Amino acid sequence: MTGSGPEVSRRSLLGAVGIGAAGLVVGGVAGATAASASDSLHEEASGIVPFYDGHQAGITTPPQDRVEIAAFDVTAPDRQSLIEMLQQWTSAASNMTAGQQAVAGGAVDGPPDAPPTDTGEALGLPASELTLTFGVGATLFRDATGKDRFGIANKRPANLIDMPAFPKDDLDPLLCGGDLVVQACANDAQVAFHAIRNLAREAHGSAVIRWVTQGFGRTAATSAPGQTTRNLFGFKDGTLTITDKEAKAQDDFVWAEASDGTPWMAGGTYLVARRIQQVIETWDRTSLEDQQKVIGRFKGSGAPLSGGTEFSPLDLTKTGPDGQPLIPTDAHVAVVSPEKHGGTRLLRRGYSFTDGVDDTGHLNAGLMFLAFVRNPATQFVPIQMSMSSSDHMNEYIKTHGSSLYAIPPGLTKPGQYWGQQIFA
Amino acid sequence: MTGSGPEVSRRSLLGAVGIGAAGLVVGGVAGATAASASDSLHEEASGIVPFYDGHQAGITTPPQDRVEIAAFDVTAPDRQSLIEMLQQWTSAASNMTAGQQAVAGGAVDGPPDAPPTDTGEALGLPASELTLTFGVGATLFRDATGKDRFGIANKRPANLIDMPAFPKDDLDPLLCGGDLVVQACANDAQVAFHAIRNLAREAHGSAVIRWVTQGFGRTAATSAPGQTTRNLFGFKDGTLTITDKEAKAQDDFVWAEASDGTPWMAGGTYLVARRIQQVIETWDRTSLEDQQKVIGRFKGSGAPLSGGTEFSPLDLTKTGPDGQPLIPTDAHVAVVSPEKHGGTRLLRRGYSFTDGVDDTGHLNAGLMFLAFVRNPATQFVPIQMSMSSSDHMNEYIKTHGSSLYAIPPGLTKPGQYWGQQIFA
Repeated sequence: MTGSGPEVSRRSLLGAVGIGAAGLVVGGVAGATAASASDSLHEEASGIVPFYDGHQAGITTPPQDRVEIAAFDVTAPDRQSLIEMLQQWTSAASNMTAGQQAVAGGAVDGPPDAPPTDTGEALGLPASELTLTFGVGATLFRDATGKDRFGIANKRPANLIDMPAFPKDDLDPLLCGGDLVVQACANDAQVAFHAIRNLAREAHGSAVIRWVTQGFGRTAATSAPGQTTRNLFGFKDGTLTITDKEAKAQDDFVWAEASDGTPWMAGGTYLVARRIQQVIETWDRTSLEDQQKVIGRFKGSGAPLSGGTEFSPLDLTKTGPDGQPLIPTDAHVAVVSPEKHGGTRLLRRGYSFTDGVDDTGHLNAGLMFLAFVRNPATQFVPIQMSMSSSDHMNEYIKTHGSSLYAIPPGLTKPGQYWGQQIFA
Repeated sequence: MTGSGPEVSRRSLLGAVGIGAAGLVVGGVAGATAASASDSLHEEASGIVPFYDGHQAGITTPPQDRVEIAAFDVTAPDRQSLIEMLQQWTSAASNMTAGQQAVAGGAVDGPPDAPPTDTGEALGLPASELTLTFGVGATLFRDATGKDRFGIANKRPANLIDMPAFPKDDLDPLLCGGDLVVQACANDAQVAFHAIRNLAREAHGSAVIRWVTQGFGRTAATSAPGQTTRNLFGFKDGTLTITDKEAKAQDDFVWAEASDGTPWMAGGTYLVARRIQQVIETWDRTSLEDQQKVIGRFKGSGAPLSGGTEFSPLDLTKTGPDGQPLIPTDAHVAVVSPEKHGGTRLLRRGYSFTDGVDDTGHLNAGLMFLAFVRNPATQFVPIQMSMSSSDHMNEYIKTHGSSLYAIPPGLTKPGQYWGQQIFA
């Protein structure tokens, strides 16, 4: 018995679509323009983001609709086993981000008496702009007992700091840390899930998942491009993020340089990942005016309470008729504003999550906060310390997960592997 | 302080999009065809499904990408309070399915000193084919203690049976039952979540969520229309479902008639909702041949192991060279096949879910099985009994939630309310 009747692979299906669309355009028949426009809209949501690049994809890539982010604990017995897993992961990642199976033909074309080497649920689905972004936690370099398991303790980046305890955090150790992290972003939840699942499968014997979160944001197919996503407080979230268009800000605030102290991290960055529960039933009983004072922005437009439009600068000194600042000093935007923190900025990828219902019949929901920064100690810690001490928003959130990972620079050609810069 | 600077409502944004597209077509400028095609693809994923109809939407509606389904326990002190909540829900549901806020202007245009009457996270997002499908459980008519809380015990539909215990089920009572259910389907997870959240918010004091599940399926923007979704076993799931094109099968197997014993249910149906955990790490270690024998179909094409293509009929008698049936007698498709069950069929809406990681570092994942049937006792119970007793697939699944709801007929005009047929 062979694997299947008509052979199906992600590659062949994609090929067929491409040829069909091209054929219409070349033929110049009536409707060609329509087909090509429709194809380009499809392409926007279903296209391929290049895997090989000086920086990893999934950082400055405009945010896709979904995230599936997983941290792993390494169980590999030795350095060589870990390297082999990372090599296998890299091969699978470069395949899957190209809209192919984890292993070519793995789902249905392999030997029938062996388990398939791709789990198959993404067969027929296009790449969907899948990006896989790989990072390492401090415990990879030296574990909790201080042991240098893989002979790489001297490679730990100077900026991969041990995060201080933030006063208001309510951390669950099982939602924090991990030796490795993979952020899968795609416009299709099934494609993102498939990617993490297949990496977890290939990790058998070398790593297990420590925590995983599935998140949702805007939907590319139905949203205006460039529109700021709203979080589950109903407010626009990420207005001040560094966009894919801001090359200088990326250089200043996102990409590590050799002069930062760790040459192998040049072109990489650091990921702060915080799982923040939003107490939405309390929030939903708060008046509009109070909600806006907590955030410091108008809920509808996203403009600062000091006036203007969404992207207008904050005026933290402007006062209202009562003599008080229009943006309260404990408003979220005031507390975290760049002007209070030496002008530093973050690159944000925000996704909401929901996780069933609590004991009292209220929806569990929150924000998977993902920020990429060049230097966590100077760009994130001071901001988070300010938030913990004085942000009015603390009444409405509980942070259960908090992690920091080094995100190595990108791979530039086949044959290289995730983490190679560390083991080289 | 008023709610916002520039006013934003879901309605006004949608209006603007509509006018823009129409303008291009009327203007007849170069690119008009492209704009119109692109608009129609947008429309497919972002459009409005009518709320008022003889049948409720979200049943024969082609499955949208996402589901957020929630069951509620009613806590309303009396019949009138419950009716008022249902009236408020109906108003919100008709608004939200039209791409509007739960309450017109509710997010940002209400009094600043009151909590907003819409939570706001869907501002700027189109309807996204949102459907809201309302149902009632047996406990609404008579609670677990036998009490007729709302004076409607005599209205319980004959076909809203107490389900028998199925031998292999491993039920968690908190994932089963509930007095009310709302299935929100949409092409945008944020729109589906927003709908359930706003209904839960309006239910304050009258109902609390008992269980909720967020599911994902194909993505309209990136999938070929009509393609069967794959479940997390990697197999096509729902090949034999009753489609939106099969009016006669719908009449035979989906829509209740007055002659079924409960006149007020004519045009309604019954929803079987089962939360089925898939033991994917065991499945992923199973050979391709064994996987295919468990299901009874080829993994790639979805064709029966007896041959043909995805939609070919099963040949349960056809044998291979070894004299054994090509489709094993304990294969899933053989056990549940219509020919074994008097030709009956189900209307399936299948969505996958994922739910973090278990204690051993494996992904929790599964299938939110949703089936609409005219008569659960004859159409579902015998099939499930066969599955429980002899389906090879039992080795790879654990059913934690199982519920049955009566889905009343649709509302045909504004002013009617969900459940009105029961309280009239």
